[in-house]
Order: sequence, then C-alpha cells, then structure tokens
Amino acid sequence: MVGIPELTKGQFDIVYNTTSFALAAMLFASIFLLVSQGRVLPRYRTALVISAMVTGIATYHYFRIFDSFKDAYVSFAADGAGPFGLVNGLAFNEGYRYVDWLLTVPLLLVETVAILTVTQTESRRLLLRLVPASALMIILGYPGEVASDNLTRGLWGAASTIPFLYIVYILFVELTKSIEDQPGEARDWVKNLRWVLLASWGFYPIAYMFPMMGFGGADAFVARQVGYSIADVIAKAVFALLIYRIARLKSFHDDAAFARQELSTKDFVSDGPPEREPVTSAP
Amino acid sequence: MVGIPELTKGQFDIVYNTTSFALAAMLFASIFLLVSQGRVLPRYRTALVISAMVTGIATYHYFRIFDSFKDAYVSFAADGAGPFGLVNGLAFNEGYRYVDWLLTVPLLLVETVAILTVTQTESRRLLLRLVPASALMIILGYPGEVASDNLTRGLWGAASTIPFLYIVYILFVELTKSIEDQPGEARDWVKNLRWVLLASWGFYPIAYMFPMMGFGGADAFVARQVGYSIADVIAKAVFALLIYRIARLKSFHDDAAFARQELSTKDFVSDGPPEREPVTSAP
Repeated sequence: MVGIPELTKGQFDIVYNTTSFALAAMLFASIFLLVSQGRVLPRYRTALVISAMVTGIATYHYFRIFDSFKDAYVSFAADGAGPFGLVNGLAFNEGYRYVDWLLTVPLLLVETVAILTVTQTESRRLLLRLVPASALMIILGYPGEVASDNLTRGLWGAASTIPFLYIVYILFVELTKSIEDQPGEARDWVKNLRWVLLASWGFYPIAYMFPMMGFGGADAFVARQVGYSIADVIAKAVFALLIYRIARLKSFHDDAAFARQELSTKDFVSDGPPEREPVTSAP
Repeated sequence: MVGIPELTKGQFDIVYNTTSFALAAMLFASIFLLVSQGRVLPRYRTALVISAMVTGIATYHYFRIFDSFKDAYVSFAADGAGPFGLVNGLAFNEGYRYVDWLLTVPLLLVETVAILTVTQTESRRLLLRLVPASALMIILGYPGEVASDNLTRGLWGAASTIPFLYIVYILFVELTKSIEDQPGEARDWVKNLRWVLLASWGFYPIAYMFPMMGFGGADAFVARQVGYSIADVIAKAVFALLIYRIARLKSFHDDAAFARQELSTKDFVSDGPPEREPVTSAP
C-alpha cells in the first residue's frame, strides 16, 4: 500500500479509538441480534441470524485490525507521547478489511434480499446476480489498495467500480420496487434502509480514491482508516438494526396475537401498533 | 489529558482493583440480564436486552481500561513496591471511557424510556430529543477531558453541560410524570430509579471538574478513575437491576397467570403480588 506514515499522538489515538469503537459496535450488534430472535416471527429469523454473522465476522476482523495497528505502531517517546512509527518489523495489515468484505458483503446482500423479497424465486433471481458481482468487486479492488502507485490503484479501482455500480443500481431499483409491497410502518423503514445503504456504500470508493486525489501522508491514512471503520459500522451494525426493526414491524403486521404479546396494552387502545385487532368499542 | 502523574503503590492498587471490580460487576450484570429473560413478559424483554448491551459494552471497555492501565504503568522498583510511572511508550488511554459513553448513554436512555413509557409514539417522541442530546454531550466533553489546560477543559465542559442538563431535566420530568402510570409496587421502584439516575449521572461532571478545582496530580487522577468507575457501576449495572425489578413487577401486574407461575403460593394468600386472582375465602 501507499507507504504508512509516522503519526502524531493525536492521530494514533483517533485510529486506535475508532477501531476499538467499531469492534465494540460490531460485537454487541451481533449479540443483540442473536438474543433478540424471539422478538420477531420465525420466518424473519434467518435475516437476523445472517445479519449477526456479518457483524460477527466484522468483530473478528476488527479484533485483528486493532491488534495489528497496536502492534505495528510504537511510540518513539518513553512516556507514550509519540510520534508513532513502525519500528518492529510489523506492518499494519490492510488485507484484513478485504478478507472481511469478501465474506460479509455477499452476506449483507443475502440479509437485505431476505428481509425485502416476498418469494423464494424472486430472492434466488436477485442473489444469483448480486453475490458474484460483490465477490468480483472486492477481488478487483484489492490489488489497487495495496499498489504503491496511483496508476495501478486507479486501474483496479475503475475495474472494481463496474460491479459496484451494478450492485448499487440493482439494489436501489429493487428496494424502491419493494417499498410498495411493505406493510404499513415498515414502508418508512425500508425507505430509511435505502438511504443508509447508499450513504454507507458510497463512502468506500471515496476513501479508496484519497491517495489518487493528492490527499496523502498521515492525514489521508487516518481519514481512510476512520472512514472505512465508520462506513463499516453503518453498513453492518446500523443496517442490521434497521433490518431488525423492519422484521419486527412485519412480524406485528403478520400476526396480531404476536403483536399483542410484544407490545404494551396501551398501544392497542390509544394510538396503536402498525396492525391491530379490530377494536369495536374504541373511539 | 492533564499529565498522568506518578503513583504510589497504594494509589496504583486502588485504580487497579476498582477497575477490576467494575469489570466483574458489568460482566455478571450482563449475564444475569440475558439469562433472566424468561422472568419477565415478552413485552419487557427488549428493555432487559438493551440493559445487557449497555453493561456488555461497558464490560468490553473495562477490559480495555484495565489492560491499558496495567500495561502503561510500570513499577520503578524491582520488587513492585513503586512508585509507578509511564515507562514503556504506552499512555493510559482515557479515550475508552468516551467511546463507551458514546455507545452506552444513548442505549441507557433507550432502556429507560422502554420501561417507563406506555405507548410507542410517546417513546419515539422522547428518544428523538434524548439520543441526539446525549451524543452531543459526550462529543463536546471529550476535547476538554484530553486538554492539558484548565481553560480548554472548562470551555468544553461548559458546552457539554448544556445537553447534560437538558437530558437530566427531560428525564426527571418524564420519570416524575410516569410515576402516576406505574402499577402498584412498581411505582416505588420508579421513584428509586429516579434518584439512582440523578445521583450517578450527577457524579460525572463533578469528576470532570476535579482538575479545575485545583484538585490535581496523582490524587485527582485516582479520584477521577475511581469516581468514574463507581458512577458507571451505579448508572449501568445497578440501574439495570432496577429496570429488571420494575419489568418483573409490571409483568406480574399485566398477567396474573404469569405471576402465579413465578411466585410461591404463599405470596398469594399472605400479602399478594400486585395483581392476584380473586381469593374469595381469604380474610
């Protein structure tokens, strides 16, 4: 990759704390999704489990990224005041992010399709186009990420952008179509899901291009690490919580008895959950 | 942050043991809350799971804080008798607390609102005001915490106090209003919850101000670490147990069959749970 620069104490702390933050967010999103299975109907539990696998795999890689960063960088001052540089023959391993994406991005697509589509045929049709495209996107991006010159970075980046745009296009079109099919309140949340997807996915190519836009050195390194971490938290943990919310609203809609058991009684008489039993005597 | 001072053996031990105590309290509060899901009705389980996420995230950060403190400080005497200072190029990372608060304080507000409010609309209304305010409070506090002069500390601290007071005000007013809506015995426990909230939250700005009150050096460092840790245990672990208690009392009130299943038969004839079956032959 483009040479790893020396960092000030402040820059070191930002990358260190952001990576730890991402780790914690991913870990507890995973646990939340796994222990909250009973809060949705069985038919939506696979989407939650796959979401938990995505954040779980990301947890593992953030452990590795955190340790790799901490071990590679050492303060040159005895009191830890920095500057921080690579001293002990260990380089910070950028590969973890790509291995993570290679595993999690296809699964992210599976969880998205699982919560939105109505039929198995439809879901198969979408995944046969999305999953290979996502693998291609990540495999083509990696040689550019670790390249030392901007031309190589640019060429691989451009190649990777083709499947990237294809995926975003398919997803956005399909998410927009699926809005019509969503029941009641779930509709607004699918709209939110669409924007969270676009905003978080859109950040990756921008961070990738930092070194090509003449934005180099320590600042660009820090911006890319922080940017990838925050984009990951939004694309995986926040996205998973939106999937959970949609699954819960769809569960309430599908089964009024389940909604009654899960919501307080007041919700049924005052302003109601997404779908309620007919209340004949209510005002 | 205001320069980390050298510590005596006694001071080192106090911080070391308090951090370990907080870690253990958080870890087992989390486990307790997760394995006790079946002790409340489904509608109250989300509040318990979110409480477990709060103490779980805190567990993770206390692991990190403990390791960071242990690794950063080294005894200058070969027999470990101290004094203890920073020698090995690692600084004690104050950032963990802020990352922890950034994740847990919004969740603490979600769990509080979840157990107290009666309708989904009401809960959304409160959270839209509380969650952004809590993120603002923590983000504004951090630059002051790591500042090396008291003027910078004071300015950021003052800015952070505005959302802090807003949150405490909203919560206190809402908790007071909600007391009326709580069934039977749960009412007294909501009153307790209110005071625990005020006492634990109120400690943070005091600890923050230590260096500004001319209370500096090793004593202030130790007081702040111990103070933050104890406030965290009360605000998260003890608070979560109160939430559990309230969820349980509300469950008994909502569903007499559940209460009968959960309580010993003696409870029904002697002084009864909040909601009991009509006992015709009782005195």
